[in-house]
Amino acid sequence: MSRTVYLNGEYLPEAEAKISIFDRSFLMADGVYEVTSVLDGKLIDFDGHRARLERSLNELEMQKPEGFDDLLDIHRELVRVNEIDEGMIYLQVSRGSAGDRDFAYPSEDVKPTLVLFTQNKPGLANSPAAKKGMKVISIEDQRWGRRDIKTVQLLYPSMGKMMAKAAGCDDAWMVQDGMVTEGTSNNAYIVKGNSIITRQLSNDILHGITRAAVLRFAKEAQMKVEERSFTIDEAQEADEAFITSASTFVMPVVEIDGAAIGTGTPGPIAGRLREIYLEESRKAAV
Amino acid sequence: MSRTVYLNGEYLPEAEAKISIFDRSFLMADGVYEVTSVLDGKLIDFDGHRARLERSLNELEMQKPEGFDDLLDIHRELVRVNEIDEGMIYLQVSRGSAGDRDFAYPSEDVKPTLVLFTQNKPGLANSPAAKKGMKVISIEDQRWGRRDIKTVQLLYPSMGKMMAKAAGCDDAWMVQDGMVTEGTSNNAYIVKGNSIITRQLSNDILHGITRAAVLRFAKEAQMKVEERSFTIDEAQEADEAFITSASTFVMPVVEIDGAAIGTGTPGPIAGRLREIYLEESRKAAV
Repeated sequence: MSRTVYLNGEYLPEAEAKISIFDRSFLMADGVYEVTSVLDGKLIDFDGHRARLERSLNELEMQKPEGFDDLLDIHRELVRVNEIDEGMIYLQVSRGSAGDRDFAYPSEDVKPTLVLFTQNKPGLANSPAAKKGMKVISIEDQRWGRRDIKTVQLLYPSMGKMMAKAAGCDDAWMVQDGMVTEGTSNNAYIVKGNSIITRQLSNDILHGITRAAVLRFAKEAQMKVEERSFTIDEAQEADEAFITSASTFVMPVVEIDGAAIGTGTPGPIAGRLREIYLEESRKAAV
Repeated sequence: MSRTVYLNGEYLPEAEAKISIFDRSFLMADGVYEVTSVLDGKLIDFDGHRARLERSLNELEMQKPEGFDDLLDIHRELVRVNEIDEGMIYLQVSRGSAGDRDFAYPSEDVKPTLVLFTQNKPGLANSPAAKKGMKVISIEDQRWGRRDIKTVQLLYPSMGKMMAKAAGCDDAWMVQDGMVTEGTSNNAYIVKGNSIITRQLSNDILHGITRAAVLRFAKEAQMKVEERSFTIDEAQEADEAFITSASTFVMPVVEIDGAAIGTGTPGPIAGRLREIYLEESRKAAV
């Protein structure tokens, strides 16, 4: 079945959704995005994603696209027409097309491009990967300096994913000045004793919406949270490791650079956090 | 007059040249590009640009697009139909569209997207800016680590151009660990005594095609060339400063962060190099 996607006010068959070759996301990665998960046909953490989108737009002095105030309705309509029970909705705002290429931003009358499409993922919440755990490699973090802005400059994360695949692993953790920043499309955590350790917020990492929710739930469940940097060595000696992202929720990591973490199987704290996150998020879904 | 552009084997009116929303250059900046100048209706440094394109594709394990072997003909046809005497031809190769979004590269049967379009710039060689000189500001270099690959991850250079504009200047020189890397879309040079100083090649800067030609001409004209890093302080105390790029050739810089360089007017060495470059390039144009 062909998906129906959203492009600048129109709902279109996916094959008809096309943009100009002069669109600035195509020519110079001048765009930002969000991915929102769908469970039980409802949106997870929608307000958080919308708020972060607004922040990304502001940081880049990008106009809000027409349709910004209707984003909830657009998301819901795409879920409805594409009959998504579990999956994701991808949203991108590009600075738009001025009909030519120029490093300088176009004038105000050039309107941003707004694109949304669904990805149907039956079984997303009940993922076998969550039972098995992920293997990661470490790679140098070669990304630009403003990773707090969720831009489409994803070539290096994409390269990182391919490096992981080539090494027979699932993902890569990026390392800058000896300290882990994050995964290619997720925040990174370790558990040591009673503490959940994850890098503090800064321009060096994405301010994960799932990260914020998981840390809140962890504190509510009386777990200790330390927001600080850690090394790959420390991670390899941790009791547990895991990642969080909108599309993987909480996902255990069982191996880093060939070293088993803890028992080499998904840890109880990651498991418990995944359970709480899914339960609370389903309750709050819209 | 509407331009004719090239897209995956077809010559199309620019308004009809559209790509899928799933194209990887649009979704994750997974694309590389080249800009070739046109003088007297002929291509400048074409072989250098094609060779660098091939290197960029190899570095990213991207397939050559259909049409790669015909690039010279495609460039010439676009010059002809768009009646370009002076201007530029922009070329982009995207990893293409697999019809969905995934960080992992698509399978081999997904073919790259090849786009080319012209930009008509009458008076390009006789630019008034070359007589007046440019003013630049310095900004921190926040780009990713593989600037030797000419990818479309140009958001930060674009932001830099806007910062320069806001400061009443023409461009920004980027600084990493206290040393100038390059301009937002050009290589940076200073002249001190009898020496032309420009940063050595590495992953930190673009391996400029115009840079290579200008350094060769400088050596042939018995000028001394030092390939090494320099600071903004050293640049401000230099006798001259300039940039090189495919579309600006050799362009004098007369002010850096508000400090006049030398006499505050275009210097004789930059002027002479521009002259030699234009003369030799016109001779060798194809």
